[in-house]
Amino acid sequence: MVDGMKLRLKRIGIDTHRENVAFLARDDLTGRSLGLHPMDRVEISANARRLVAVLNIVEGNVLPVGAIGLSTEAFDKLGVADGSLVDVAPAEAPESLDLLHNKLAGQPLNSNDFERIVDDIVQGRYSKVELTAFVVSATINGLNNDETMWLTEAMIKDGDQLKFDSAIVADKHSIGGVPGNRTTPIITSIAAAAGLLIPKTSSRSVTSPAGTADTVETLMNVELQAERIYDIVKKENGCLAWGGAVNLAPADDMIIQIEHALNIDAQSLMISSILAKKKAAGATHVILDIPVGHGTKAETTEIGRSLKERFQNLGLRLGLNIRVLLTDGSQPIGNGIGPALEAMDVIKVLTNDPNAPMDLREKSLYLAGELLELTAKSIQGQGRSTAQQILASGKALEKFGRIRTLQGRHEIPALGSHTKDVLAERNGQLRTIDNRIVSRVAQLAGAPHNPGAGVYLAKHVNDVVDKGQLLLRIFAESDESLTFAARYWVENSRAAIVMS
Amino acid sequence: MVDGMKLRLKRIGIDTHRENVAFLARDDLTGRSLGLHPMDRVEISANARRLVAVLNIVEGNVLPVGAIGLSTEAFDKLGVADGSLVDVAPAEAPESLDLLHNKLAGQPLNSNDFERIVDDIVQGRYSKVELTAFVVSATINGLNNDETMWLTEAMIKDGDQLKFDSAIVADKHSIGGVPGNRTTPIITSIAAAAGLLIPKTSSRSVTSPAGTADTVETLMNVELQAERIYDIVKKENGCLAWGGAVNLAPADDMIIQIEHALNIDAQSLMISSILAKKKAAGATHVILDIPVGHGTKAETTEIGRSLKERFQNLGLRLGLNIRVLLTDGSQPIGNGIGPALEAMDVIKVLTNDPNAPMDLREKSLYLAGELLELTAKSIQGQGRSTAQQILASGKALEKFGRIRTLQGRHEIPALGSHTKDVLAERNGQLRTIDNRIVSRVAQLAGAPHNPGAGVYLAKHVNDVVDKGQLLLRIFAESDESLTFAARYWVENSRAAIVMS
Repeated sequence: MVDGMKLRLKRIGIDTHRENVAFLARDDLTGRSLGLHPMDRVEISANARRLVAVLNIVEGNVLPVGAIGLSTEAFDKLGVADGSLVDVAPAEAPESLDLLHNKLAGQPLNSNDFERIVDDIVQGRYSKVELTAFVVSATINGLNNDETMWLTEAMIKDGDQLKFDSAIVADKHSIGGVPGNRTTPIITSIAAAAGLLIPKTSSRSVTSPAGTADTVETLMNVELQAERIYDIVKKENGCLAWGGAVNLAPADDMIIQIEHALNIDAQSLMISSILAKKKAAGATHVILDIPVGHGTKAETTEIGRSLKERFQNLGLRLGLNIRVLLTDGSQPIGNGIGPALEAMDVIKVLTNDPNAPMDLREKSLYLAGELLELTAKSIQGQGRSTAQQILASGKALEKFGRIRTLQGRHEIPALGSHTKDVLAERNGQLRTIDNRIVSRVAQLAGAPHNPGAGVYLAKHVNDVVDKGQLLLRIFAESDESLTFAARYWVENSRAAIVMS
Repeated sequence: MVDGMKLRLKRIGIDTHRENVAFLARDDLTGRSLGLHPMDRVEISANARRLVAVLNIVEGNVLPVGAIGLSTEAFDKLGVADGSLVDVAPAEAPESLDLLHNKLAGQPLNSNDFERIVDDIVQGRYSKVELTAFVVSATINGLNNDETMWLTEAMIKDGDQLKFDSAIVADKHSIGGVPGNRTTPIITSIAAAAGLLIPKTSSRSVTSPAGTADTVETLMNVELQAERIYDIVKKENGCLAWGGAVNLAPADDMIIQIEHALNIDAQSLMISSILAKKKAAGATHVILDIPVGHGTKAETTEIGRSLKERFQNLGLRLGLNIRVLLTDGSQPIGNGIGPALEAMDVIKVLTNDPNAPMDLREKSLYLAGELLELTAKSIQGQGRSTAQQILASGKALEKFGRIRTLQGRHEIPALGSHTKDVLAERNGQLRTIDNRIVSRVAQLAGAPHNPGAGVYLAKHVNDVVDKGQLLLRIFAESDESLTFAARYWVENSRAAIVMS
């Protein structure tokens, strides 16, 4: 127990994005001669529980004198009742910051170094500034294959891990950047129907208009604890869960937040992030989809190939059977972009609806086929047709329905009632559709927080259109967000869709 | 005027350290379909005033639904009354972030690039994460001499500048890291008494136990606007002002905050920072003191020499007459560490008190002499003795007194009444005193926020002591901070003072 000063603990309802932040009134800082300064680290302790946080200074209207505030997550982590007396004392910076300095200076780190850094990150001991310095150092100075491996192992170790009693546990991952690329629920249904064990965990959106978990959540409950996952997978071979509920490789989420805020994608960090999640989820056989195209993480085939090689290298070292596929990422996939709109596409494919988007169907069958081959559920060269039979027969839909019922069925929410249509201004043929601009329009319209918001893309590249035909429709749940999205569209429409 | 949604503006009493932060209730984010997400940038506007801020999410007890909060500085910057209706709309990231990406990728930036980045930093358009990415990129990839020059010019341009009608405007700067190195008030008094124009602006502590402005503030008011500075300098040739009150090179302060939080010192950024401040303050002739020793910014003579060369290079290009001196930075200077304790040392030197710390007196005379020679107020080789005559004659004290009266006299506050003595545990000779540990003890005792807090260092390196003799005394203004400082001392005393 630290022998510090006694202050009264107050929960402050500010979400500081996993940084432990403590709040102290300015009058306490100066008037009570506490020997503390803004941005200092303090240790807060009570009942043998303790937490280190970065000190922010507030005024009397936010926090009374004699109190110490904690941001929401830090408060929950400490687990001491609001209003309790706690001990507050200065704390030194985590020792692993020295290792961060080494990385910053261009020196490679070892296995133990990464364990210490990751542990301090997960415990919230790094401030946002320090975490950013780690991410930028790793981006500029890079991580060699050994370092990437050690970071991955450290991230796996510092979270929970799912374990399945099977020699083959299947998984798939598509690298982001392509709006509407929602193959996961389809592939999972096909694979589970084929008898593969596929306990699928997916993420929510960080900056995209929808993560797989956001889309699936419009169809069923995705917040499953490990026991529920084990139970459902035992019954149906597969599930469609949100990975965040089972705390897999939590350091990764924090690193990704910083990367997205900076709009940077360090290859090493991305590879490490993806495979750490797969390994922690218990996967043994993994299909990895790398879409190549403008606005994706692999803008050129060359980058795609280099990524492929690094994924294979790390996968091998982690003991994963991994098949990496470069796919066409030059434009959005399917018609819907946004949780409910994407869910509708998924249902159309699963129900063999003649209006189902063929590109989404085709890509799902291709990836599912590769997964069946990788796991020897199909002989080489027969994977796609096996997958197609399972889909066409209705078995995939049936499997999906059972998983949906077990997880807890949701009905797809209504699409936003505030809409704006974008029509072709002249006759012509679509040449390019920009992934990033379409994503941004869907986000401004409210996706994924408003599940009925997004973009319905009526046309794809190479489609011939007549003047006045619908190109896309923006759906929003309020006039304000429709205005934001529509204004952004108008400012960027020339780059968004190029016609000849 | 942006055509966004209307929300009611609320000032939130949180000091976010120059990052513009907007707060929105979680219920507003999800319930009202605003199309905004945590960490998004929003533009807030009213009455033709506008500001871009990063969105943080809070709960209902912090901010009511229908309101938008702004952190204290951002609120002041916007300048719209609390409770006003404001327009809130999504804003895109500042365009200069593309340039930041270039620097991150190792590409050099040009003059215009630095202007745009510095402008966005000063306007608070960079989040802390983005500012950190800039600082870390500049640290790892470095800035070449051209880039350092352009960054410096951009920082000067983006703040206020003092202008004096004189061919010679003197200034001095000591690089930090040596506790008690408080030569500035002494040198300024000597130089002004010698007839030199020396409008001295100094900084407050960022992480040290006292900045020059903190120490001088215990003796006189230092918060002088430009007009006051011009007036006082006209009358007395010199002043001792806090630079922060005149907004010189404000980007620099924000960069320094990040560097200190990370405990990194990028040479280029430091050089740029120091000379931008000097140039913006109107200096033409500058003495630059680089203390060399453990715990300083120049740990070795080699680093000191490299710094010297870069300072001379940039100084020349900025049109400054600059003389760079490497000095002994191996241990603290003077007896006092902390605002009031340092002020007492300064007064002792100025009053020719026989108990004045000789090291502080000697270093001040040396630097003052160099300044007199650089500005041709003394012939070469005679600077130190000229300075000594001015000090010994009482003219420096007289000058100091007049400046003190004009700025507004303060009486030195009482030293903290909670003290702890550290005595020699055995007979011996002091071999080393660790700058960093002594600084940290003074900080934990409350310096500089509690001006009477700090450390009185009774002995220096090479002093012979008997068992039981006073080595140092810690002063604090409360029992709690004395406990923090004393505990840190006990944990680190072996490394802090090494005896033989």
